[in-house]
Amino acid sequence: MSLLVVGSVALDSVLTPSDERNDILGGSASFFSAVSSLLGPVRLVAVVGDDFPEEHVQFLAERGVDIEGLQRATGRTFRWKGRYLDDMVSRETLDTQLNVFESFKPQLPKSYADSDFVFLANIDPHLQRDVLDQIDKPRFVALDTMNFWLRDHYLDVLKDVLKRVDVVFLNDEEASMLSGRNNLVAAAAAIRDLGVPRVIIKRGDAGAMLFDEEGIFLAPAFPLENVVDPTGAGDSFAAGFMAYLAHKADQRAITAERARQALIFGSASASFAVEDFSVDRFRTLELNQVVERCAGFSRLVRFSPVEI
Amino acid sequence: MSLLVVGSVALDSVLTPSDERNDILGGSASFFSAVSSLLGPVRLVAVVGDDFPEEHVQFLAERGVDIEGLQRATGRTFRWKGRYLDDMVSRETLDTQLNVFESFKPQLPKSYADSDFVFLANIDPHLQRDVLDQIDKPRFVALDTMNFWLRDHYLDVLKDVLKRVDVVFLNDEEASMLSGRNNLVAAAAAIRDLGVPRVIIKRGDAGAMLFDEEGIFLAPAFPLENVVDPTGAGDSFAAGFMAYLAHKADQRAITAERARQALIFGSASASFAVEDFSVDRFRTLELNQVVERCAGFSRLVRFSPVEI
Repeated sequence: MSLLVVGSVALDSVLTPSDERNDILGGSASFFSAVSSLLGPVRLVAVVGDDFPEEHVQFLAERGVDIEGLQRATGRTFRWKGRYLDDMVSRETLDTQLNVFESFKPQLPKSYADSDFVFLANIDPHLQRDVLDQIDKPRFVALDTMNFWLRDHYLDVLKDVLKRVDVVFLNDEEASMLSGRNNLVAAAAAIRDLGVPRVIIKRGDAGAMLFDEEGIFLAPAFPLENVVDPTGAGDSFAAGFMAYLAHKADQRAITAERARQALIFGSASASFAVEDFSVDRFRTLELNQVVERCAGFSRLVRFSPVEI
Repeated sequence: MSLLVVGSVALDSVLTPSDERNDILGGSASFFSAVSSLLGPVRLVAVVGDDFPEEHVQFLAERGVDIEGLQRATGRTFRWKGRYLDDMVSRETLDTQLNVFESFKPQLPKSYADSDFVFLANIDPHLQRDVLDQIDKPRFVALDTMNFWLRDHYLDVLKDVLKRVDVVFLNDEEASMLSGRNNLVAAAAAIRDLGVPRVIIKRGDAGAMLFDEEGIFLAPAFPLENVVDPTGAGDSFAAGFMAYLAHKADQRAITAERARQALIFGSASASFAVEDFSVDRFRTLELNQVVERCAGFSRLVRFSPVEI
C-alpha cells in the first residue's frame, strides 16, 4: 500500500571523534525514503534549495522514491552541523540554518491524496495538520516531533493532531514534556489518554518501548561494535516500522503482533543506518540483510522459562 | 550449594521527590542477603558498628542468613545519604560516612572456607583478593566494583583478581574506564580478554547486557509505573543472578542458557527491590511472585519471526 513521508531534506555536516563529513545528504525524509524504499515505493514531500546536488535527487529516484512532492525553492538548502562525543550517543549541535525549510509549506501533489500510510516527520504541528487535511482517508498515520513543539500554541495544535494519528514516536524527554510525567510507563499511559492508541518511546542504544492495547513491548537496539554516524537513526527506525506495516498491508491486518515485528524491523534498519555516514549504508544494503538481522534480535533476547 | 557475600551493611538516608527515610537498612550485603535468601541460605561477611539496630540482624537471621561472619566493631555503622532526582534514576550523594567500614578487614569464619558461590560486592580490590585467599576452592565467583577502584594501584590488584572470577558486574562508565573503550561491545570484549569469561553491563532502567562465549544476551529492566527507591537495585540484581545459579547447582551445570535465566531472575529481583525503601519489599515478597514476573519478561520481548 502507498506510503508517504513529509519532512526535511538537508545537507548535514557531521563530526565524530575519528572522522568528519561536510554537506552530506541528511534530513528526516531522506533517511525515511532511503530505508523504506527497501520494501517498496514511497512518496516524498519536502523542500530543497537551488544549491541541492542533483545526484541526491537521482539517488532517491533510482530507489523508487516518488519525488513529485519534492519542492525546489530559491535559496539555500536546510543545513545542520553537529558533533558526536566520545560515547557516540551524546551530540552537540554546532549550527542550524533553516534556509528554505523555514518557509516550507507542504503541498501534496494531487496523486498523493490517496496515501494509505503516512509518516509526519518532525516539523511544526501546524504543518502536520495541513498535511493530514490534504489526504482523503489515511489508513495509518505516524507522527514524530521534538521538544521545540511541546510548548505554547504549538502544543495545542499538536494535541489536536495526535487525535488523528495511530502512533507517536517520542524520546524520554519528549514523553515527559508531553505528559508531565517522569516515569515512562505513566507517561505513555497519559499520552495514550490524549487519543493516540500507540506510543513508541525511542531510547537510542537502549532500544525502544511500544505501548499499545496489548501492554508493553521492548525492542532492543542491536549491539554494534562500530558506530560510524548516529545521525538519522530515529528516522530510519520509524521508516523500517512504517514500511514493514505498509508492505502487503492489503493482505495483513495491523495487529499488535504485527506492530511488534515492525518495531524489530525498524530497530534493524536503524542499526544499519549508523554503520555509515548519511544514508550511505543503504546504497549497498539488501533487504535480506535486514531480515537476517531481525532473526539476530531473537537470539539476543531469547531465554528458556525460569523454573525453580 | 553454599553462597557467600562479602560487602557492606549500612544505614542509608534516602530522599526521593515525594518521600524520605532516615537510617534505614542498606548496603550491598544487606540487599544481596535479603534477595538471595528467597532461594536458600547465604553466608554474610560484613561489619557494623555498636549502634547497629539488633532488629536488622534478627531480620536477616530469620531469613536464613548465616550471620556468623557479621563483625561488630566499636564505633558507628557505615552511613550513606542520597537524593534521587525527578527521573528516579539520577541521584546525588549528599553524605558518606565510612565509619567502621573504613577499617573493614573481611575475616571469614572457618566454616565459610568451603563456599561454592561467592559474590564480592563493591569493596577495595585488595580486600576482594584477601577474601578469595580464604576460600578453598570456589566454584563460581562474581565481582562488583566502582569507578574509585579503577585507578592507580587499586586497578592493578583488580586486574589480578579478575583473573580469578567468573563474572564481573559493571555499569557503562566502569566498563569504559576498565577497558579504555567507549563502545560497550568493544569494552566487554576487552574486559573478557583480561581473563574474566563473563561480563555483565548494568544499565539501570535500560536493562543489562551479558557478554559470554555464546555472544550477547539482553535482559530488559521490568517497566514499573511506581518506583519508590532505586537504592540497592544493582545488588539485588546480582543477588538474584547468583542465587539462581547456586540453587540446585549440584544438579545443574552453569551453561550459557542457565546464565540467561539467572539474569532474568536477577532483573526480576531488582524490579521488586525498587518498589519499596530499603529491603522492605522482601519482607513480604514470595518466591513464586519473582518466578511469575520472570514469565512476564518473556511477554515483554516476545515477537514472531519477521518475514517479508
